[in-house]
Amino acid sequence: MNKQIIFKKRPIGFPEEDTWKLEENPIPNLKEGEVLIQHHYISLDPAMRGWMNDSKSYIAPVAIDDVMRAGSIGKVIQSNNHPKFKVGDCLTGWGGVQQYVATDGTNWFKVDDSIAPMPLFISTLGMPGMTAYFGITEVGKIKEGDRVLVSGAAGAVGSVVGQIAKIKGCTVVGIAGGQEKCDYLVNELGFDAAIDYKSENIYDALKEKCPKGIDVFFDNVGGEILDAALTKIRMHARIVICGAISQYNNKVKVKGPSNYLSLLVNRATMQGMVVMDYAKDYSKAAQEMGMWIAQGKLKSKEAVFEGIENFYDTFGRLFSGEKRGKLILKVIEE
Amino acid sequence: MNKQIIFKKRPIGFPEEDTWKLEENPIPNLKEGEVLIQHHYISLDPAMRGWMNDSKSYIAPVAIDDVMRAGSIGKVIQSNNHPKFKVGDCLTGWGGVQQYVATDGTNWFKVDDSIAPMPLFISTLGMPGMTAYFGITEVGKIKEGDRVLVSGAAGAVGSVVGQIAKIKGCTVVGIAGGQEKCDYLVNELGFDAAIDYKSENIYDALKEKCPKGIDVFFDNVGGEILDAALTKIRMHARIVICGAISQYNNKVKVKGPSNYLSLLVNRATMQGMVVMDYAKDYSKAAQEMGMWIAQGKLKSKEAVFEGIENFYDTFGRLFSGEKRGKLILKVIEE
Repeated sequence: MNKQIIFKKRPIGFPEEDTWKLEENPIPNLKEGEVLIQHHYISLDPAMRGWMNDSKSYIAPVAIDDVMRAGSIGKVIQSNNHPKFKVGDCLTGWGGVQQYVATDGTNWFKVDDSIAPMPLFISTLGMPGMTAYFGITEVGKIKEGDRVLVSGAAGAVGSVVGQIAKIKGCTVVGIAGGQEKCDYLVNELGFDAAIDYKSENIYDALKEKCPKGIDVFFDNVGGEILDAALTKIRMHARIVICGAISQYNNKVKVKGPSNYLSLLVNRATMQGMVVMDYAKDYSKAAQEMGMWIAQGKLKSKEAVFEGIENFYDTFGRLFSGEKRGKLILKVIEE
Repeated sequence: MNKQIIFKKRPIGFPEEDTWKLEENPIPNLKEGEVLIQHHYISLDPAMRGWMNDSKSYIAPVAIDDVMRAGSIGKVIQSNNHPKFKVGDCLTGWGGVQQYVATDGTNWFKVDDSIAPMPLFISTLGMPGMTAYFGITEVGKIKEGDRVLVSGAAGAVGSVVGQIAKIKGCTVVGIAGGQEKCDYLVNELGFDAAIDYKSENIYDALKEKCPKGIDVFFDNVGGEILDAALTKIRMHARIVICGAISQYNNKVKVKGPSNYLSLLVNRATMQGMVVMDYAKDYSKAAQEMGMWIAQGKLKSKEAVFEGIENFYDTFGRLFSGEKRGKLILKVIEE
């Protein structure tokens, strides 16, 4: 049987437990040219919250009664004359929150799981890593000496953003929730400083830790933190809008950045990004980041939780902050 | 004697009458190398409101007891061995709201008032025209076929922005207050459509008049209009933040754009600008715009009011909307 997390109800605010339902359905039969993938790991990402809303976005919303959309990685266990993939291949794609998926292979990519553990391919060598890489280089346009601020800095994207900025010769300050995460940023990932937004006044902390201002702000969070960062940007600063996790479960209107006129004063740019636009360059980026990982310059952290039955509680950690690095759900039963 | 408008009190919200005081002081004596300029016209601009606030901006705030800062144009009536300017020269610069100013000529530019009436040099051939020109071309990066939306479209900057966009082959919709202004945009300036924000629901009107969305939004207004425009931007749209006149007299916090995550969804850019950054290219732009004016492609409208004594009431028209085109105060007494 195939355990699946089915999307049942569009949430308002933070999703309640009956947003999804765990179902057991037969493992699908393959059509000609399809493969059957057994999922090992599912990627849990803040973006999933956005896909649940019935509003125009960069991707269609998840339909009610569909398997919940998610990135995933697994192995081909059966092939019905697939032209490219064979049994044993390790594939990553958008398999959804379920244990098995049948596909003709469209938008699935083969990875070599002998060179790195599977979770890495849906973490730093997957979407979050790509988001960080293209966001900070192509949109943030960092150059040596830039002063970079990252919010959600202990997360899957933020932690990579900060490390890439360090590799490129920038000064990097990260914002995260809690002393433990802040210590991790500075002591393990090599950030120059960290701000604990849970215990520090963000305006005072920015004054102290970014005394010369900010050239690039990579924002995963939105809300008050974006507003505070706007007061510290330097001339011609670039603000990368990657996400706004503080606003995703709002029952009221999103908090817009009151200090946006700082863009005018400082001739600054605020630009949104969606990682899929850079798909043609993924492999180049993965190569470069793989090299940095091998050289010990880039650390990838995955927070792996186990059991598709625990999807709801694990998903909640995206917003409660009770995890560090990339949140991953292991769904293969051993 | 020299009638001067002296800045006496930092306003909170809309400036009250005692924000300034009209004083008569002796016409200054010239030092060696200075000229005395008799002002003919003073430029009244929304930016003046910002300069009154004691906050970090792109320019220092006006000091209490100083002459109110303003752009101006006038003629040299006396020279004490100025190396470059002579009696009779027509000069434009930052002379402030007063009838006479003595200067060594720094940041003053000579214009030829035989080819165009003086007000044009502080209007379309002056700062507002330059703001429009560089804002829509360099920041908005318009190209043929773009769908352009302009707020404050009947104003000194907006009216020129829209006309330049038409010249460059764009479809242009303007937002203005009142049917008369909207008619003016469409019938006299050649805009494709206009939205009267005072009588129309801005969301409905955008749906009707920008059915295919917006590639470039040139914003002079901020507030609800910016929020509404954000819901209609197209992929890779550019939003030019030129001003936010709806927010300048706020006693509460500026309203930030709640819909800013549309930047993410649409991979769009919001960028601030200050015209002074383009100073080295002013003359090139003035030449091109002068040619368009001569060819009848670009219309410049000045709303000239008379008498330095009427400064306060005239200044109020910037925010009440009771004027069309560039607001100018004639201060020479004939």
